[in-house]
Amino acid sequence: MSQSDWVSPRNAALLTDLYELTMLQAYHRENLRETAVFDLFFRKLPENRNFLLAAGLETALDYLENLRFPAESLEYLASLDRFSGEFIDYLANFRFSGEVRALPEGTPVFPDEPLIEIIAPLPEAQLAETFLLNQIHFQTLMASKASRVVDAARGKTVVDFGARRMHGADATLKAARAFYIAGVDSTSNVLAGQVYGIPVAGTMAHSYIEAHPDEASAFEAFAELYPDTILLVDTYDTLEGVRSVANMARSWGNRFRIRGIRLDSGDLGELARKSRDLLDADGLTGVGIFASGSLDEYSIDGLLEGGAPIDGFGVGTHLGVSEDSPYLDSAYKLVEYAGKPRMKLATHKTTLPFRKQIYRRTSKDGRYEGDTIAAADTQDIAGAPLLETVMRAGKRVGERRDLDAIRGHADRERSHLPATLRGVQAASTPYPVTVSEDLRGAMEDLRAALGG
Amino acid sequence: MSQSDWVSPRNAALLTDLYELTMLQAYHRENLRETAVFDLFFRKLPENRNFLLAAGLETALDYLENLRFPAESLEYLASLDRFSGEFIDYLANFRFSGEVRALPEGTPVFPDEPLIEIIAPLPEAQLAETFLLNQIHFQTLMASKASRVVDAARGKTVVDFGARRMHGADATLKAARAFYIAGVDSTSNVLAGQVYGIPVAGTMAHSYIEAHPDEASAFEAFAELYPDTILLVDTYDTLEGVRSVANMARSWGNRFRIRGIRLDSGDLGELARKSRDLLDADGLTGVGIFASGSLDEYSIDGLLEGGAPIDGFGVGTHLGVSEDSPYLDSAYKLVEYAGKPRMKLATHKTTLPFRKQIYRRTSKDGRYEGDTIAAADTQDIAGAPLLETVMRAGKRVGERRDLDAIRGHADRERSHLPATLRGVQAASTPYPVTVSEDLRGAMEDLRAALGG
Repeated sequence: MSQSDWVSPRNAALLTDLYELTMLQAYHRENLRETAVFDLFFRKLPENRNFLLAAGLETALDYLENLRFPAESLEYLASLDRFSGEFIDYLANFRFSGEVRALPEGTPVFPDEPLIEIIAPLPEAQLAETFLLNQIHFQTLMASKASRVVDAARGKTVVDFGARRMHGADATLKAARAFYIAGVDSTSNVLAGQVYGIPVAGTMAHSYIEAHPDEASAFEAFAELYPDTILLVDTYDTLEGVRSVANMARSWGNRFRIRGIRLDSGDLGELARKSRDLLDADGLTGVGIFASGSLDEYSIDGLLEGGAPIDGFGVGTHLGVSEDSPYLDSAYKLVEYAGKPRMKLATHKTTLPFRKQIYRRTSKDGRYEGDTIAAADTQDIAGAPLLETVMRAGKRVGERRDLDAIRGHADRERSHLPATLRGVQAASTPYPVTVSEDLRGAMEDLRAALGG
Repeated sequence: MSQSDWVSPRNAALLTDLYELTMLQAYHRENLRETAVFDLFFRKLPENRNFLLAAGLETALDYLENLRFPAESLEYLASLDRFSGEFIDYLANFRFSGEVRALPEGTPVFPDEPLIEIIAPLPEAQLAETFLLNQIHFQTLMASKASRVVDAARGKTVVDFGARRMHGADATLKAARAFYIAGVDSTSNVLAGQVYGIPVAGTMAHSYIEAHPDEASAFEAFAELYPDTILLVDTYDTLEGVRSVANMARSWGNRFRIRGIRLDSGDLGELARKSRDLLDADGLTGVGIFASGSLDEYSIDGLLEGGAPIDGFGVGTHLGVSEDSPYLDSAYKLVEYAGKPRMKLATHKTTLPFRKQIYRRTSKDGRYEGDTIAAADTQDIAGAPLLETVMRAGKRVGERRDLDAIRGHADRERSHLPATLRGVQAASTPYPVTVSEDLRGAMEDLRAALGG
């Protein structure tokens, strides 16, 4: 452990499973360098989910554009006694020269639909597997969970409080960005604010209250510096805390500009109602109620269904680790090599061969009504094609996308989904995704040829 | 999004919740700079867990030793219109100057026991909260889960395959290290191999098989280059794959040195038995069986309980996201300020005040039999004190610990635990942890004084 145990563009080429490199050496030796097509997709939806929200593409493109093996990485590989000097020399000049087709970030996506398709000489497409999965899986996981929380909050403010319990440092950054794409309003993570320009937000901790002789003097001291802050009222007794705020309003008069109170423990619905009553009784109708503490889309939905007078939510752990489904069934599979379709037949893990396109149909009233997954060269499939070419010959096509534009895209795209898909439970009718007849027929032929 | 969206020692000071910085400005303005003591601990064990294994201390000490606000971080903070020029100047000279007491990494730890105690001027101890929780929570989560997988595997080889579904890039590094501390044998993550010197391992992917005309020719090509490799047999039909390996052994004769086969789908117990029979029938008793695919401590325990002839396990997602408990109930709480004990009374979140020590008692036959949590200055508590001073005046005490030494410590410490704690289910008798009478009495006095 040392200052070098951080991932950066300089060492990212080694953030790969060893077998990618042992296979690369074999491909190199066997001269297997023809064009391979790999699809990155999800096999199924977690329980209660109706769609996923694609994210992670920009990180993937950054990685592919900058993929290099610097000297210290090559030295380490040489030290393993598995790789020939000739192969190490080959890695020294290794670049990603391929093409990438992908769904724009913020696009709703369903099982078996490729989020990203890598078309490149076999070794280049193979090496990228681990890193691309690591980033696209995680960012899609986070955007998908956040989309549910945002929908459950019905337009109330949602703030990301997750940094302390997310899995490591990179997660806190990439998740804050994915949350913002999905409609979360702001983050407590200052570094994410700096790096991505996401609005930052935050209030005060219990330790601030406890460092003062009593709660009321802590409130006063904090409000002197931050007149329009949100005060945390549950350190000792929540309703006593609310009464302290009301007392302060009386004594401060026109100077009182506190924007809200924060409840962080106990029965949030009941405390919100009692707090609202206490505040309103003092004419403090403009003081909002902000809630936090083990919240997720289910509890937020329940609180608002029950009429809890809550104006905003700080959502931490359950969002930040996607608690009800901390992973997705992601895959990165070879679907074509040297111009021929490929498929795996392993139990429950059969893959769809061929380069593909996804077509999404829209009804007359502007709702998405179904997708067709077809081979990329199939003609006359109804619907708008979703996969776009985003990289050619190892270089991004066009400009880097603006984060607010991606967020806007995500918002518009979700507004076209059937409304039933946006609840916290599984919709009684899942979104229809079909495999085109041509592709299905070709698959059966291939399965028969492989003896499956 | 850009090449700058990676966390490094240079920008780690901003990996903090905004409220830490708004509180810091308030502390600065109010001149609240006396010594604070914060405890980092876990409130309870997840279901089925009997202990946690402490990890993350080295990352914490690296962070505290190097905590700085470089110019670009200060510029960003100044741009937020929340911080005064004078406060920004104060941050420019900010250093961590405090003391740290901690459990050595690899020590079993129980609820309410501090893993790390930060003793420093209030602003310094406060700022570190988010980063310390992020790293110590995650690394302890990973070491604790891995310890269960290693115990379930009963001495069989365990390899970390988790990188592709862990949460972001930093997680893959820090988890690989935590797994190694907990007894995992090796990792597929090449970067973790380079950074920490952990043994790396790996076999081949389905795509390698599919890129060849048929499975048998893929096996032969791979074995030419890696004579003692492990061959993946489930791409098309698992038992046919095993027969291919047996055919190869017959035709290769003395040249055949394949070390094992890998099963990655289907009923692993049944396939392992049938594969073992097929291999043994050909005299291939030295060819091992390696299993992977959605494994965790429960399934490994079940397979080995059932007598499955499996020699090693590749464990990925369920370990890498701690699937059955993707977070721990971690906390970082003020327990003393300016020489006086502090506590929070919020519902279900009451904290233990005072600087503490943990005493662990050992029975005559060398088993740990119980812990006492006491105030640090209490005399005559039975057992060995566990918290050690690891940093003074912002500098590490002694040398950086060697990773293999930490792994050895973890192994020895766990061997002293009651055997019932090392199963996959909750022990009928939890490990006894008591709060000393002195501390309990002082707590009640404090609670009364706070009106709780």
